[in-house]
Amino acid sequence: MKPRIGIIPGDPSGIGPELIAKLLVSHDVSEKANILLIGDEHVFRMGGMQAGTQIIMNDCDPRQDNWTEDKNFSHFPMDTIDPKAVEVAIATKSSGKSVLKCLDCALELARDGIIDAITFAPFNKTALIDAGLGHEDELHYMAEFLGVKNYISELNTLDGIWTSRVSSHIALKDVPMYITEDRIFEAIYLIDKTLKRSGIIRPRLSVAALNPHGGDNGNFGREEIDIIQPAVGKMQAEQVNIDGPWPSDTIFLKAKAKDVDGIITMYHDQGQIALKLMGFDKGVTVQGGIPFPVTTPAHGTAFDIAGMGKSNVGATRAAFNLACEMALHWH
Amino acid sequence: MKPRIGIIPGDPSGIGPELIAKLLVSHDVSEKANILLIGDEHVFRMGGMQAGTQIIMNDCDPRQDNWTEDKNFSHFPMDTIDPKAVEVAIATKSSGKSVLKCLDCALELARDGIIDAITFAPFNKTALIDAGLGHEDELHYMAEFLGVKNYISELNTLDGIWTSRVSSHIALKDVPMYITEDRIFEAIYLIDKTLKRSGIIRPRLSVAALNPHGGDNGNFGREEIDIIQPAVGKMQAEQVNIDGPWPSDTIFLKAKAKDVDGIITMYHDQGQIALKLMGFDKGVTVQGGIPFPVTTPAHGTAFDIAGMGKSNVGATRAAFNLACEMALHWH
Repeated sequence: MKPRIGIIPGDPSGIGPELIAKLLVSHDVSEKANILLIGDEHVFRMGGMQAGTQIIMNDCDPRQDNWTEDKNFSHFPMDTIDPKAVEVAIATKSSGKSVLKCLDCALELARDGIIDAITFAPFNKTALIDAGLGHEDELHYMAEFLGVKNYISELNTLDGIWTSRVSSHIALKDVPMYITEDRIFEAIYLIDKTLKRSGIIRPRLSVAALNPHGGDNGNFGREEIDIIQPAVGKMQAEQVNIDGPWPSDTIFLKAKAKDVDGIITMYHDQGQIALKLMGFDKGVTVQGGIPFPVTTPAHGTAFDIAGMGKSNVGATRAAFNLACEMALHWH
Repeated sequence: MKPRIGIIPGDPSGIGPELIAKLLVSHDVSEKANILLIGDEHVFRMGGMQAGTQIIMNDCDPRQDNWTEDKNFSHFPMDTIDPKAVEVAIATKSSGKSVLKCLDCALELARDGIIDAITFAPFNKTALIDAGLGHEDELHYMAEFLGVKNYISELNTLDGIWTSRVSSHIALKDVPMYITEDRIFEAIYLIDKTLKRSGIIRPRLSVAALNPHGGDNGNFGREEIDIIQPAVGKMQAEQVNIDGPWPSDTIFLKAKAKDVDGIITMYHDQGQIALKLMGFDKGVTVQGGIPFPVTTPAHGTAFDIAGMGKSNVGATRAAFNLACEMALHWH
């Protein structure tokens, strides 16, 4: 059976609607999944115009209708923003509110088993905050919306390399406080499970050290000896395919050489410096810890090229393909 | 006038002697500099054999003789290690002692104005520590040997991109303590001066932030607002060509695009993750804060290929060329 993927167009002011239109013209998307477009018809139409194409949509109520049998793209019509309020290349409260309404609807449909996974085009953080996001990022918003209590963490993936984080959007001075055995276990479980759900049977994982040179045998920092190494040992005893800790300035060379599938990082920039240098704007972000797959391209709304038809659909296609893959391997 | 460069062969157990032999066969080294080889004749000869070449050396006492008029390579003979004690591909106390004796001699010659700069082939840290280095690295050893009291910091350079560090071989938890205006000034002065001495008239510098997303306007970390930004402002007022702080996961994209010459990093791995991914093993390390140029290839003794003739001389040549360049622009 094909997975059922809900797609929301992202911030209408950015390149999101155009990306979705470009994604949908690919001949194979309908072969891979049953697609449900969630959002305002005029936003999807605008994206089609920006992309120089036309999206053939059939409106439906996915809770009532047998929408997966439709040969065209199914569309759950919404009314989240007035067409006149859409301002290309400007972050507005209206566009942020539109995003949140579409997101809420998609989350409810996934929660209720009407769709299997969600792919969303880029959001704009300023617009979301103006619209009342109330959280540091969309992942924390989603978790609260769904009542998720377990460990959540953004996962980043590029060209077969995955990273998870033991700490994320916190001050560097607070990082050592977050380096606990429990958090390391959680970050390992999450990436291991997510990689399996992406279709890798036995993911090869490596854990990054916290300190330079991995602490140099305790000469500068003991977290490796006292916390990280024992945590890795316990995971190995549980048959997780994992090693480390490795100094963070060499671990990504292993990733570049494809000697590892997933890297558990201790802090935000440890992974992000490496991924961005490796071209992460072509990558995908997965909302880890949410009870169904949610994927999005790693890049942003790209206001500098919004509405011009110049966007590159590569990362969006990768996000969609990953959502399909994960939906198939979820349970 | 040509610069006078002192060359020491590095750890005799590693690829150092072979690299020096490979460097010396380049037709242009004698055109660029007057070269003084400092060390045991048998070590240089061994390197020649490993490289499949022969080094023509004329022994001299550089404090007495007019060695710069010699057409062959001048050689200051030393007796630091018994030929039978040289064990290829093994870190030994004897090889570490050999390195320190050659280094001491080179430092004295440079201190006394007999040579203008030093290039050394790779040392082995384990051997150095066994031999009584007594410091966290060779830079701190050199500083103590020379009585240097000013700010010292390893500088790394690769293909025109330079980095300096506000903190280096310390635990991550101690990094925030090192983020002071004074240390940032010192790191900026050092890289600015060093880049000028490498021949760049007005170096373009950028400063990295400490916290993820540069602290996100103080939401996670205030060092950018309270310390780094004011420090950058004061440097700009002194006509230093500098900007920042920039989030550390984007600043290296500027470097990759060649929009900047030098980056001031706040901690070790911030710069090293990026440089190593960009191929820093092809790069050069400069011992910043020493009163004359001291350069070395960024890679190590490479015991896995020691003695096999397989070493790549690229980084050593870059280190030698940089020493020449810096000697010419030093004062």
